[in-house]
Amino acid sequence: MYIILMYDVNEKRTGKMLKLCRKYLNWIQNSVFEGEITEVKLKELKNRAALIMDNETDSLIIFKSRSERWLEKEIVGVERAETDNFL
Amino acid sequence: MYIILMYDVNEKRTGKMLKLCRKYLNWIQNSVFEGEITEVKLKELKNRAALIMDNETDSLIIFKSRSERWLEKEIVGVERAETDNFL
Repeated sequence: MYIILMYDVNEKRTGKMLKLCRKYLNWIQNSVFEGEITEVKLKELKNRAALIMDNETDSLIIFKSRSERWLEKEIVGVERAETDNFL
Repeated sequence: MYIILMYDVNEKRTGKMLKLCRKYLNWIQNSVFEGEITEVKLKELKNRAALIMDNETDSLIIFKSRSERWLEKEIVGVERAETDNFL
């Protein structure tokens, strides 16, 4: 399946979340990732994220689509993914 | 069509972008929106966003899906949309 993932976590935890999500998905923008992933790997990512996050204050949203073909992506302004190197 | 929109803009411009996007879509997380929108309204939103943004440094990404039914949304941690009131 193809997913878009975005998190909104306390500043103290952004570094760890970035490092974790980059192991599974492609970074495209500040706190936003996309990519192909299996159910098993997604479950693993969610469990590991939940261990980092404060589930009372932090937020992680995942949009799942059966295939990338069902999503059309458009960028206005700068395409971060290619230009920026991240942590 | 159903879209997920996220922006990554300079702090000076986040207030204006938030105000603009809220007129068309539902705020779900820091700089992230979702919602049903027509081609015409999306074009209008993109044009108005481009006027606010610095297209050399700011980034706006839109994922389009033909219908909300083709997207499954999952939340880990806090669901911001309902709990937070925003600007």
